[in-house]
Amino acid sequence: MTVGFEFGRAVLPVAGISLASAESGIRYADRPDTVLLCLREGTNTVAVFTRNAFCAAPVIVAKEHLLLDQPRYLLINSGNANAGTGPLGLEMAKESCEIVASAANVATATVLPFSTGVIGEQLAVEKFRPVMPQLLASLDEANWEQAAAGIMTTDTVSKSYSTQVELAQGVVTITGMSKGSGMICPNMATMLAYVGTDAAVEKPLLRFCLDESVAVSFNSITVDGDTSTNDACVLMATGASGVAVESAEDIERFSLALAEVMTWLAQAIIRDAEGITKFITLHVEGATSLEEAKTVAYTVAHSPLVKTAFFASDANWGRILAAVGRAPVEGLDVSLINISLGDVAIVKSGAPAEGYKEEKGAEVMAKEEIGVTISLGRGDACATVWTSDLSYAYVKINADYRS
Amino acid sequence: MTVGFEFGRAVLPVAGISLASAESGIRYADRPDTVLLCLREGTNTVAVFTRNAFCAAPVIVAKEHLLLDQPRYLLINSGNANAGTGPLGLEMAKESCEIVASAANVATATVLPFSTGVIGEQLAVEKFRPVMPQLLASLDEANWEQAAAGIMTTDTVSKSYSTQVELAQGVVTITGMSKGSGMICPNMATMLAYVGTDAAVEKPLLRFCLDESVAVSFNSITVDGDTSTNDACVLMATGASGVAVESAEDIERFSLALAEVMTWLAQAIIRDAEGITKFITLHVEGATSLEEAKTVAYTVAHSPLVKTAFFASDANWGRILAAVGRAPVEGLDVSLINISLGDVAIVKSGAPAEGYKEEKGAEVMAKEEIGVTISLGRGDACATVWTSDLSYAYVKINADYRS
Repeated sequence: MTVGFEFGRAVLPVAGISLASAESGIRYADRPDTVLLCLREGTNTVAVFTRNAFCAAPVIVAKEHLLLDQPRYLLINSGNANAGTGPLGLEMAKESCEIVASAANVATATVLPFSTGVIGEQLAVEKFRPVMPQLLASLDEANWEQAAAGIMTTDTVSKSYSTQVELAQGVVTITGMSKGSGMICPNMATMLAYVGTDAAVEKPLLRFCLDESVAVSFNSITVDGDTSTNDACVLMATGASGVAVESAEDIERFSLALAEVMTWLAQAIIRDAEGITKFITLHVEGATSLEEAKTVAYTVAHSPLVKTAFFASDANWGRILAAVGRAPVEGLDVSLINISLGDVAIVKSGAPAEGYKEEKGAEVMAKEEIGVTISLGRGDACATVWTSDLSYAYVKINADYRS
Repeated sequence: MTVGFEFGRAVLPVAGISLASAESGIRYADRPDTVLLCLREGTNTVAVFTRNAFCAAPVIVAKEHLLLDQPRYLLINSGNANAGTGPLGLEMAKESCEIVASAANVATATVLPFSTGVIGEQLAVEKFRPVMPQLLASLDEANWEQAAAGIMTTDTVSKSYSTQVELAQGVVTITGMSKGSGMICPNMATMLAYVGTDAAVEKPLLRFCLDESVAVSFNSITVDGDTSTNDACVLMATGASGVAVESAEDIERFSLALAEVMTWLAQAIIRDAEGITKFITLHVEGATSLEEAKTVAYTVAHSPLVKTAFFASDANWGRILAAVGRAPVEGLDVSLINISLGDVAIVKSGAPAEGYKEEKGAEVMAKEEIGVTISLGRGDACATVWTSDLSYAYVKINADYRS
């Protein structure tokens, strides 16, 4: 099940990025599980990776290769995360890059490996070898949707999105794909996202744009608070449009368009979250800092009691209030807290709002998309976090999986 | 459902503490919801309360009264938490103390109020008035079990436990009761515990004993990580046995006996946890500090993915490893991590242990009581945390409740 998932928008090719998918049989039979991206020479690539202390072997290798050379190929497999696999796993991740490098006749360090799937099993990289000619032969700029399907694990829909923006020198395209169905599911591990643009963007600026947009997109969602060993988000700028992002105005326009793509892709993960029946937007305002606002939003978003109340369409503001109160923030004052559900004020100064009636809250809660605004009354900073509810289906998916 | 809950042990009276329960109709009809404890003069009382920034009105009043005077009466109601109730709630909490004080002819500050139940509704304290004569008349040292039943909310069993210990001057008794069925359920809010002894213990020593024993009992359990607005743990020493706790040896014996009672009461909350099907003991060792060990244990214990894996009896060590890796601890090294399920080594140096077979893990996971040992390999500190699994029933209880 998905909530408010929007299909049917055209996914545009990005000049300079071609994609292909194949069935290697890493874990599943009869479904694509291996994706190759080819970037034209001169493409600037930046990435952010999981902050989990135990990052997977491909994450270690990808980070290393990013320091050594400019990426030309990205190899992504689903079905096996190559995490918790020790020194042998590291060798396998390197070996997978060598397989691509020798077939494509490039340096090994120009290949980045990504894996998502079961933790703790060795990756059978030899399976990549026979499909390599087919992958290289079928690389095409039109293949974003096929690629998005090839990186799915417990996802029920593939996720890709495009936008275009007019800059001083012309129009550029931004297209991305993502996968993930828990914020993370470290079993069928991982959130992965790949966003490409034909704009020409210098690497330091590209890095800035990535950090800014990840903060308001992938770092503003949660299903279950479990970050994975394999999370990665990659931003590639091919420059093939000949349109450079340079002026302050261009940077702003490009950043906004990038944030649009990233936010869509991040929200798509929540809309397809394991067991979702409600898409919840938590907005925390009146905080003393962005970090404080996010901390409070995440504490509420992670509360199993708040999440089950949403599942039950129960306007149980006591659970929200209690979750705010246990957020690791010093000196919160309950008498300054206001909470609204949609546009219904339910808590005013830490107590039930005058005139609030259960029916009004129930009306908002009955919807599939629910907005919650929490005002801390102590500053001007705010943050928004998107999350899903906690349903029987969430338990079922995560209890049944792998057994 | 409960897991490994041990009934049938005699609950011993504590000289100097008498108890009574009554039906005030605060929320439920036909069940006891109001409990009164009477402490003999000279009883030393210490308490710890919730660290939730939005503590309930009775918590604020109880803390205040503890500073002003020696408690003589404790009034506890279930069905309404008197939390999120603003200034009027505070008045009501004070009023409830006045009702006891005037009926018992003591100073108001010698009465401590405690509430547990629904958040955000005003407490109808007038309902205490008519039952007060009956409560005072039926006070009896033999009533621990009735009192334990009167403070229940979503609990499925009442929880009380006794032990005796021989000190230099004679034998003393320690008896306690607790309630709570989520670590907290901020809706039917709260973990409450009351432990009494007839030993004579000076207040500073009593405070020390409480802090020590709470750390290894109530502060070592979690169902869902949601701490409540009303949590309280009260330790009362009447001195009625004439046996003083004074020598170092006495202190050690008394502390051990107290920890036994506290740990039983805390574990009983987990054994009766909402939706529990597995009782899980997480032991983290090889940490650089107790705090670090607890942080890692709690991160694992709170992971919905780990908890659903336990529900599914799935020896999914990848989820455990990923949870350890995202614990807020600097510089964890995956190559030093060992994990055992019961006595089966499953992870050695961050990779699958040699000779480990899924069947061996499955055998341990099939049991109702499961021990997990996580070695961080970087120090000598350790900690143990008890938790429950995440089942359909947990979602059902928390989604259905109140609706």
